[in-house]
Amino acid sequence: MPLVKTPKGFNIAVAAAGIKSPGRNDMALIYSEKPARIAASFTTSKVKAAPILLDMVHARRGKVHAVVINSGNANACTGKQGMLDARETVVLTARGLGVPENSVLVSSTGVIGVPMPMKRVRAGIRDLIKGLGEDKGPEDAAKAIMTTDTFHKLVERKLTLGGKRGSIVGIAKGAGMIEPNMATMLCYLLTDFDLDRASLKAAFNEAVEMSFNRITVDGDRSTSDTAMVLANGAAGNEPLVYGSEDFSKFSSALREITYELSRMIVKDGEGATKVIEVSVKGARSEKFALRAARAIANSLLFKTAMYGGDPNWGRIMATLGRADAPFREEKVDISLGNVMVVKGGLSTGKLKAAEKELHKSEVKVTVNLNIGKFEASILTCDITETYIKINSEYTT
Amino acid sequence: MPLVKTPKGFNIAVAAAGIKSPGRNDMALIYSEKPARIAASFTTSKVKAAPILLDMVHARRGKVHAVVINSGNANACTGKQGMLDARETVVLTARGLGVPENSVLVSSTGVIGVPMPMKRVRAGIRDLIKGLGEDKGPEDAAKAIMTTDTFHKLVERKLTLGGKRGSIVGIAKGAGMIEPNMATMLCYLLTDFDLDRASLKAAFNEAVEMSFNRITVDGDRSTSDTAMVLANGAAGNEPLVYGSEDFSKFSSALREITYELSRMIVKDGEGATKVIEVSVKGARSEKFALRAARAIANSLLFKTAMYGGDPNWGRIMATLGRADAPFREEKVDISLGNVMVVKGGLSTGKLKAAEKELHKSEVKVTVNLNIGKFEASILTCDITETYIKINSEYTT
Repeated sequence: MPLVKTPKGFNIAVAAAGIKSPGRNDMALIYSEKPARIAASFTTSKVKAAPILLDMVHARRGKVHAVVINSGNANACTGKQGMLDARETVVLTARGLGVPENSVLVSSTGVIGVPMPMKRVRAGIRDLIKGLGEDKGPEDAAKAIMTTDTFHKLVERKLTLGGKRGSIVGIAKGAGMIEPNMATMLCYLLTDFDLDRASLKAAFNEAVEMSFNRITVDGDRSTSDTAMVLANGAAGNEPLVYGSEDFSKFSSALREITYELSRMIVKDGEGATKVIEVSVKGARSEKFALRAARAIANSLLFKTAMYGGDPNWGRIMATLGRADAPFREEKVDISLGNVMVVKGGLSTGKLKAAEKELHKSEVKVTVNLNIGKFEASILTCDITETYIKINSEYTT
Repeated sequence: MPLVKTPKGFNIAVAAAGIKSPGRNDMALIYSEKPARIAASFTTSKVKAAPILLDMVHARRGKVHAVVINSGNANACTGKQGMLDARETVVLTARGLGVPENSVLVSSTGVIGVPMPMKRVRAGIRDLIKGLGEDKGPEDAAKAIMTTDTFHKLVERKLTLGGKRGSIVGIAKGAGMIEPNMATMLCYLLTDFDLDRASLKAAFNEAVEMSFNRITVDGDRSTSDTAMVLANGAAGNEPLVYGSEDFSKFSSALREITYELSRMIVKDGEGATKVIEVSVKGARSEKFALRAARAIANSLLFKTAMYGGDPNWGRIMATLGRADAPFREEKVDISLGNVMVVKGGLSTGKLKAAEKELHKSEVKVTVNLNIGKFEASILTCDITETYIKINSEYTT
């Protein structure tokens, strides 16, 4: 991978605070000297970790200076002390940087229900502030925020917009769940381009909807899921405006980055051996297509069949049967890769050919309901003995 | 297990038709000379196997003579030919018995999307009719309908009602899913007591709701799920009437039988090592309690933690967060066995003691939301590498 440079005007530091395990970087700081516009999306879980509750307020300001991130402890289900700890983390970071307290966000990922080791966090923050001069890059941050991830997740796009050269860099983590509790997904998109607030939000929301909101590893949902884009305008361009050609270029690049990152997260699904795209076509609405695709992608029986390379389309049909989306059995076509295994609800008999498709590391499953013109896709992975092993190990 | 006798007036036969594998009984016939009242419940899946579609019509008559059952092929996703085959099976059985065609039901469980081997089925029906004289019992039928089940499921209650001695015998199968497609659950409750139609239906519906509708192995749902009670009145009692003391005794016995059978199904969950009861209390409504319990029972992360004996209550809390039921994090209490691990949303620190509770083969998980007075329970099992192994094996 070529060296990914931090977008102009941002500064990144990492630190080994010993929250997760000694000697490994487990904190990261992303800092923009000039306040950066922010658009953000947080978990829809009713159980929200303390950092999420705090970030939701701070992000509403529209502009922020910094995000401080730690792995090893999620600061979730930690009650009032958790809120005090999240707040102290933000206050210490803000003081160290000399910026307003409410211009700093905090993300935490890791074990649930255990108080934050604040002594270590405080020392970590000191190291991060000192470390800002050390020229660390996005790759260091991407590595520091890993939990059960087996590889770091980083994507860059360079662009020229409004005559100015700039970039968008995406950093993410997420590998299924757990650590020890779940698949917290974190994503930070940094860009030195300038956009007005509404345009940034529009581009971000669409990118998230078409990527992170369309992946599933095990159907569980974290208390800490966070995605955000920070745009600091250091490229010097006129703010991009929704609907302009340059905005479209920016928006496409952001979509590509989030899609690639979400693909990496699925690929890194705990114990997974293949990436599977479940595409439902011919539905009466996009919502119905999405529901059907999500139901299939989350079905344990489907995921185990994919793991075994078994063209067991009966499991797909059965999952459709319980998905809350209209269809008629006798109209359904199902293809595994390029091989149609079901036509009009009945077997085509091409199971041997379909089996070959399932031995690839990327599998596309297409279900055509043939009753409408809407479609939607969900990315997922197979489920293996390794998933069970990882998640059943005693972790607390 | 003591010998379970067929309730009076019923006659059971089994046959090895070679649908599943040679030499193993894979068909069963339950016959009542006098037409038996029937109450039945069928899968809510939108994809219904041919036998289900046919049975739904025949069961509406209110009285039936016979049910013919096969394992090895589900006759699901088989289109028009599947309907013709189910119909032929019923017609041949009815002719052999000399009863009306619409007084016979058919159940099929096994592979999906493969046409029924009708030549074998026809020979099997001939053997079943001949076999009625051979004095086979409920145990033979319970064994003949097994698919991935590792043990047969049979429960009996003897009662004296209205001065007459009689019994209720429950026969069931189900072990998770698959074979190779899913966990088809079949249950036949036979009794020689007489009940009026509405009372039988009331007792049956309540028993099913509190048992089979409250278990989950992997969240998948079959195209062929079937439960029914047949009451032929051969005990000679006056028909039991809803609200009477004898009706209550009958109803309780039926509930006990279905509860025991559903426990057996969960215990036989593919690869499972323990039975887990998830009980949600203090909810604002029973519906909400049930939703929360079901979400926890179906969570892969919860099931893997139970397998590993890990008192990882964060996963329970996180699942509550995505369940569509109101609660307040700071009011939640969670107990594993008799050990309270969470009080008021916070850890009690008693993880070592809780861990011991999880090493038992039956585990009770109690979540008190403390915001209302309703409760509901779901029975489930843990998930293991063996589940993945069984379900990923190439089966078609």
